[in-house]
Amino acid sequence: MLFSYHELQTFTIEIFRTIGCPEQDARTAAAVLLSADLRGIDSHGIARLVGYVRLKEAGRANPRPVIRIIHETPSTAVVDGDSGLGLVVAPYAMQVAIQKAGACGTGWVSVQNSNHFGIAGYHALAAVRENMIGIAMTNASALVAPTFSIERMLGTNPICVAVPAGQEPPFVADLATTTAANGKLEILQRKDEPAPLGWIQDKTGQPSINPHELKNGGALLPLGGDREHGSHKGYALGAIVDIFSAVLSGANYGPWVPPFPAYVPMPTGMPGKGIGHFFGAMRIDAFRPAEEFKTHMDNWIRRFRSATPAPGHEKVLIPGDPEREMEAERLAQGIPLLPAVVDDLKALAIKLGVEFPPAG
Amino acid sequence: MLFSYHELQTFTIEIFRTIGCPEQDARTAAAVLLSADLRGIDSHGIARLVGYVRLKEAGRANPRPVIRIIHETPSTAVVDGDSGLGLVVAPYAMQVAIQKAGACGTGWVSVQNSNHFGIAGYHALAAVRENMIGIAMTNASALVAPTFSIERMLGTNPICVAVPAGQEPPFVADLATTTAANGKLEILQRKDEPAPLGWIQDKTGQPSINPHELKNGGALLPLGGDREHGSHKGYALGAIVDIFSAVLSGANYGPWVPPFPAYVPMPTGMPGKGIGHFFGAMRIDAFRPAEEFKTHMDNWIRRFRSATPAPGHEKVLIPGDPEREMEAERLAQGIPLLPAVVDDLKALAIKLGVEFPPAG
Repeated sequence: MLFSYHELQTFTIEIFRTIGCPEQDARTAAAVLLSADLRGIDSHGIARLVGYVRLKEAGRANPRPVIRIIHETPSTAVVDGDSGLGLVVAPYAMQVAIQKAGACGTGWVSVQNSNHFGIAGYHALAAVRENMIGIAMTNASALVAPTFSIERMLGTNPICVAVPAGQEPPFVADLATTTAANGKLEILQRKDEPAPLGWIQDKTGQPSINPHELKNGGALLPLGGDREHGSHKGYALGAIVDIFSAVLSGANYGPWVPPFPAYVPMPTGMPGKGIGHFFGAMRIDAFRPAEEFKTHMDNWIRRFRSATPAPGHEKVLIPGDPEREMEAERLAQGIPLLPAVVDDLKALAIKLGVEFPPAG
Repeated sequence: MLFSYHELQTFTIEIFRTIGCPEQDARTAAAVLLSADLRGIDSHGIARLVGYVRLKEAGRANPRPVIRIIHETPSTAVVDGDSGLGLVVAPYAMQVAIQKAGACGTGWVSVQNSNHFGIAGYHALAAVRENMIGIAMTNASALVAPTFSIERMLGTNPICVAVPAGQEPPFVADLATTTAANGKLEILQRKDEPAPLGWIQDKTGQPSINPHELKNGGALLPLGGDREHGSHKGYALGAIVDIFSAVLSGANYGPWVPPFPAYVPMPTGMPGKGIGHFFGAMRIDAFRPAEEFKTHMDNWIRRFRSATPAPGHEKVLIPGDPEREMEAERLAQGIPLLPAVVDDLKALAIKLGVEFPPAG
């Protein structure tokens, strides 16, 4: 079923308003959430709206947070999200990073006491609009086993780096530090189709192609898949995201990260507050004149795009190409939602006294 | 054959002196180079000494560079390495990052006009000694094909992030953004043993287990190995390293990076100067009190080290554990060199009128 961006936006804003978000926060949260649907990362978009509402109902997300800087230097800050929606806390923190970069070249902000922030790409791209390189990362519910372990210790901990170019569109690398994002596994679970070897292991640590093993004590695998193919590197990257997002800020880390589904019990002995994010902004002209940089980024992008393709492939893609093409297509033609997602949204609409799809 | 650190140090300093490096630079270069041998990354250590001498002989490495800052803001700088050895340029640039971090919380330095800098871990660890998180990366000779390509466009472009802890040793993630570092492939080439699938492809883009394919137009593969296992993520990570190291600084990028072997012809139409590096230093107390952070890092490390191991594995490792254990062992018992490396060093000694192994 296809919906226009405008329809989903109207509905999502209304839902966030209804659970108590101020008007401007409701608009920000909707923009962040729906950027995932536009960019084709369906697992992180409106399909999660019900989950955010449940977090609020469980008292774990504060719809009217007082977000504030609790420590800072000229190029750094720690932000306390006051248990707000990450969809609102993260844009605030990214603006702090951008302001610091404006003043002293770069800005780096670690965030505690937040919740899930949608897709990292949305936040990193805010810096690109200011002629800056943007960096965004977050920790997340523990679903990933480190190399040599059967215990779920890390989230899929994504990293996004977005770089402005000149005539070419920006370079946007937005990647979970696992072989495959959890959203891709969820698609296979719904279709009951096997997963490629290297995506997951079962509860005994054996490689598995059964996508349901994750719900049976299994784990997602770090990028690389196994030791021979570099899973210790994916584990290290996920660990770096965890440390920058949570050990630097005072949030929860590793297996103590509060799970996104409100029905999953909270871990005991939590060492910090909420989940953690990390943002960076680097002003291009803090390194070299912006126009000169952009000319070379255009050259970089064109050279890579024209790299000799392997037989059976049309061309080499630049990170960000597929998501940008998807966004243009979905803005023009509408956003497809699975029937199960539509049912969820209709049930949510009835529960909160909101119309779905919204009128006119 | 086993050599003491002191023997290799004496010899290496003497070689760098003989090719014209000032005394202090010769000592620095030797310390950086041999840190690879100590940490077990044999491909990047004294085995490459002959290569560095060849770079000097080919007029591509300047033994007496005037290294300088050509642009800066409170938290950033661009350093021109004046074609110096990366082994000397990189420590200079890292000190600039550390000084900037001291003054305004973080420091970020992009470097142009340099040469290969040894192992990234050495440089990142310099920040750890100052109670800072250290970050080091570099681009390198193009050996890696992006996803969907048969053309070698990127180096193995390593990233190191080193984080201080309290009672525990530091967390040190030092990783090539490929499935396997080129040094690991070289070992298989020497032994004429097959490589695991996912490390390399042949010149037609087909997966290959023949380690010699790299010398026959084949390519190393980005971390992930193939598209289904996330090679587009490894490609994106290598690209980020390339952009931060070279497009930000004015060095050469992508397929234009000057190759390390002096006998490989230089690419034509080079868009920058030399190879590029990128360094970062973040003061811990720019985010939270250092003692508090270190207590939590100890907790992080201990929790991960005690994660339930998979059957057949003793325990989960913390990034940096294997290299630190190797360093302790080799400092105590000596550094093993392959006969071919010893022969190379003896030939180099004779050519430059230096003694190997050194007397006393």
